[in-house]
Amino acid sequence: MNQKPVLHTVLSPKLLELHDVSNSVVVIIDVFRATSTIATALFNGAEKVIPVASVEDCIALGKKLQAVTAGERDGKVIPGLQYGNSPAEYPRSFIEGKTLVLTTTNGTKLLHMALDMGADEVITGTFPNLSAVCGHLIKKGKNVILGCSAWKDRFNLEDTLFAGAVISNIKEHFTIHCDSSLMAEDMYRLHKDDIYEFIQKTTHWHRLSSYGLEKDLKYCVTENIANVLPSYKDGALIAG
Amino acid sequence: MNQKPVLHTVLSPKLLELHDVSNSVVVIIDVFRATSTIATALFNGAEKVIPVASVEDCIALGKKLQAVTAGERDGKVIPGLQYGNSPAEYPRSFIEGKTLVLTTTNGTKLLHMALDMGADEVITGTFPNLSAVCGHLIKKGKNVILGCSAWKDRFNLEDTLFAGAVISNIKEHFTIHCDSSLMAEDMYRLHKDDIYEFIQKTTHWHRLSSYGLEKDLKYCVTENIANVLPSYKDGALIAG
Repeated sequence: MNQKPVLHTVLSPKLLELHDVSNSVVVIIDVFRATSTIATALFNGAEKVIPVASVEDCIALGKKLQAVTAGERDGKVIPGLQYGNSPAEYPRSFIEGKTLVLTTTNGTKLLHMALDMGADEVITGTFPNLSAVCGHLIKKGKNVILGCSAWKDRFNLEDTLFAGAVISNIKEHFTIHCDSSLMAEDMYRLHKDDIYEFIQKTTHWHRLSSYGLEKDLKYCVTENIANVLPSYKDGALIAG
Repeated sequence: MNQKPVLHTVLSPKLLELHDVSNSVVVIIDVFRATSTIATALFNGAEKVIPVASVEDCIALGKKLQAVTAGERDGKVIPGLQYGNSPAEYPRSFIEGKTLVLTTTNGTKLLHMALDMGADEVITGTFPNLSAVCGHLIKKGKNVILGCSAWKDRFNLEDTLFAGAVISNIKEHFTIHCDSSLMAEDMYRLHKDDIYEFIQKTTHWHRLSSYGLEKDLKYCVTENIANVLPSYKDGALIAG
């Protein structure tokens, strides 16, 4: 009997501990905006992206590696760092061949949790690299955890919608008995044709659009415009 | 300015600590089946329902109060207790005037968490008492937390759908900036006309229907057939 691998969706970092990730590919999802920025930088030729937990680590590592440092709090570049967390800051003309050291509030935290829990493989996903993620998950044929980074542990819709988009594309290859996944797919199917309008109802849109980031946010929910597979190896995300 | 009270939906007990419940009415939701059984027992004239955390407490309190004891694990009455966790076990002919001491895995846990965190008021909700819950929340005009009991801390759809039903009925009276609530309302609106079919896709249905509980589960998602308000006072839920 050819048993299909199992797929689960995890709606908040607080719920990751309910799952065994040791035999799974964990997809870190932080649509607004860490995983969108990571996909964009790698798509545009960055050598690697190093996600770090603290501002201090970001500064120290940037110095050591002569790398670009980036991070935001409340829509502004963090003092001591060079750039922010907008995909638009990383065109090919700037980032090609460089190393980016990135610190973010939610996505970085979940990524390190998954590594600490012994995930078999960690990749990152968002609408701009939807196809690359789906293709990889089908090819690997392992168990999958779709990990939503949420916002300070609170459920968010944009990460859930991306989980739904993945499920909608690959579900026939997996066994899915998980209410979070059922819900995520329903929400994606309900809103895939009005995603730019719907996303404006979310709490994260309200928070970030007050910083003038509407164009950024629309980019982050556009499918397959930075279609690369960021995969974590030896301390960094590289194009897989 | 007449500011509306704030409503939040909490999708798992693990996420309750992200909220301040001290000035809120907390609605404990455990559709399959604790809060459906509580509503039914009180609707049918039970004097009170005492939710307890452990089987030992249930036995001891049942003895002390000469009360009916109830609780299930894996679809069977727990050894040492008298009845199970099915609403169908508590018709008026049996439960009227009696005290029911009930232990359950998920709903009881969340209820005690909300009490420990200093909730202003704790009530219980499920489809059979939807109108009573909605009417009470509008009348009180306080902040509201819709607390889904989930299953062993994992997100579940039946509790989320009930949260969505409440929101759909009362949202004009509240300020709602909460992605969980947006999602819950969307899911309810999407499935309210096919709820008996949709609910059969959930993990909890699969678990409980394997014990032959389909009729029970359909009852639990039927609106307003045990329309009473269970309210927690002095250690017990009574008809409010």
